[in-house]
Amino acid sequence: MTRYKIIVEYDGTPFQGWQQQSGFVTVQERLEQAILPLSKVHTRIHGAGRTDAGVHALGQAAHFDLNKEIDPFVVQQCMNHYLNDVPVSILSAEIVSDDFHARFKAIEREYIYRILNRRAKPAVDANKAWWVVRELNADLMHDTAQCLLGTHDFSAFRAQGCQSKSPIKTVSKVSVTRNGACIEFLIRANAFLYHQVRNIVGSLYNVGCGKWTCNTFIDVMEAKNRAQSGMTTPACGLYLNKVYY
Amino acid sequence: MTRYKIIVEYDGTPFQGWQQQSGFVTVQERLEQAILPLSKVHTRIHGAGRTDAGVHALGQAAHFDLNKEIDPFVVQQCMNHYLNDVPVSILSAEIVSDDFHARFKAIEREYIYRILNRRAKPAVDANKAWWVVRELNADLMHDTAQCLLGTHDFSAFRAQGCQSKSPIKTVSKVSVTRNGACIEFLIRANAFLYHQVRNIVGSLYNVGCGKWTCNTFIDVMEAKNRAQSGMTTPACGLYLNKVYY
Repeated sequence: MTRYKIIVEYDGTPFQGWQQQSGFVTVQERLEQAILPLSKVHTRIHGAGRTDAGVHALGQAAHFDLNKEIDPFVVQQCMNHYLNDVPVSILSAEIVSDDFHARFKAIEREYIYRILNRRAKPAVDANKAWWVVRELNADLMHDTAQCLLGTHDFSAFRAQGCQSKSPIKTVSKVSVTRNGACIEFLIRANAFLYHQVRNIVGSLYNVGCGKWTCNTFIDVMEAKNRAQSGMTTPACGLYLNKVYY
Repeated sequence: MTRYKIIVEYDGTPFQGWQQQSGFVTVQERLEQAILPLSKVHTRIHGAGRTDAGVHALGQAAHFDLNKEIDPFVVQQCMNHYLNDVPVSILSAEIVSDDFHARFKAIEREYIYRILNRRAKPAVDANKAWWVVRELNADLMHDTAQCLLGTHDFSAFRAQGCQSKSPIKTVSKVSVTRNGACIEFLIRANAFLYHQVRNIVGSLYNVGCGKWTCNTFIDVMEAKNRAQSGMTTPACGLYLNKVYY
């Protein structure tokens, strides 16, 4: 048995998320189909994070086992060949030790959330960013977001159905930057609660458009009550950027 | 009669280019349909440049006349409403003087050509960049491209069917920059020959991958013979970035 680690980029638009569900087209299912011509037997592909429907990835990590050793370059080329009709691409493939696990061995995950902040609807960036007409103060959003750094109870941003054992997570990096009409929110943490990034962005939106002060955001976070925090922003702005091991 | 200037962004993927042709979906046709609910009569929309099938625009300029004066904000919002089902967006609308003409009054046009230079096929950038596996030397491409600056006979990069009166054009800005796997070629000139940008990129590709030296590129340009220059690169990498008046 040989274990492989792959890095995967995908446009989440045509998929019902990462995780296999009968009757739906998912990224995991398409990856498992793409390895079948090489493996000859059904091979389960384990992802680092289960992205929701419409969420993209620039660097999702995953692993799987083959019962024979095949050159990782051949694995990558073969999978990309069989992924030809979908916006999924294997960026790299490598052989890893048998105890590697894409999900359980990850020490940090990094997400990006993109906002297109302008009056006109998206065209080139359709389905690739959240469109916000109200002018947002990205500097104020950046300053406010710094309170997320460190170890906190993030219950305020935890969606129903979250399977995480604890709401306490550690954020090591967070920033909000503007480039013209594009605002990019970046956050890195050891792990994330269900919908945490999209719920944080929904609350930062309230600060950016002047509805909340920076202190309101801190109060909401400290209240640990989902009902007080902002909206869950659309999936189309979210990108799983990188998984750290 | 009131003349309007609009700036238009579009993803060219689903269109048979800018210019109206019976039986095909074009950007011009969709824009003319989008103004109809306001104008009530068929209104011809004149673009600054006729982009080919699959070519995108970040800042196409166009003009049209209405037989009554309507707030430009209303014009923009109305058009974007009727463009809801296509990746076309009116970025701005303004009233201009009667002698403004999007095509004939333009003094310069700027194009961007995007290359995704990596082994793995595009996923998030599918149809938005030209995928090149061979490693390209972007610095060498940049240095080589500087010979395009100034006034030259660009016959070497002129495609058959070009309707321009003269092959002599003036380039005021040209650059090649790399950001990770993304290479961006930018060129600004008073006007362009048919397929000129895509043919220049095809020749710069020969330099970037080591097939040509910088001097070969200059010799090809000076020979003024299309048969000696590089391939016409795919439409999906090309963006009409800005039109200057």
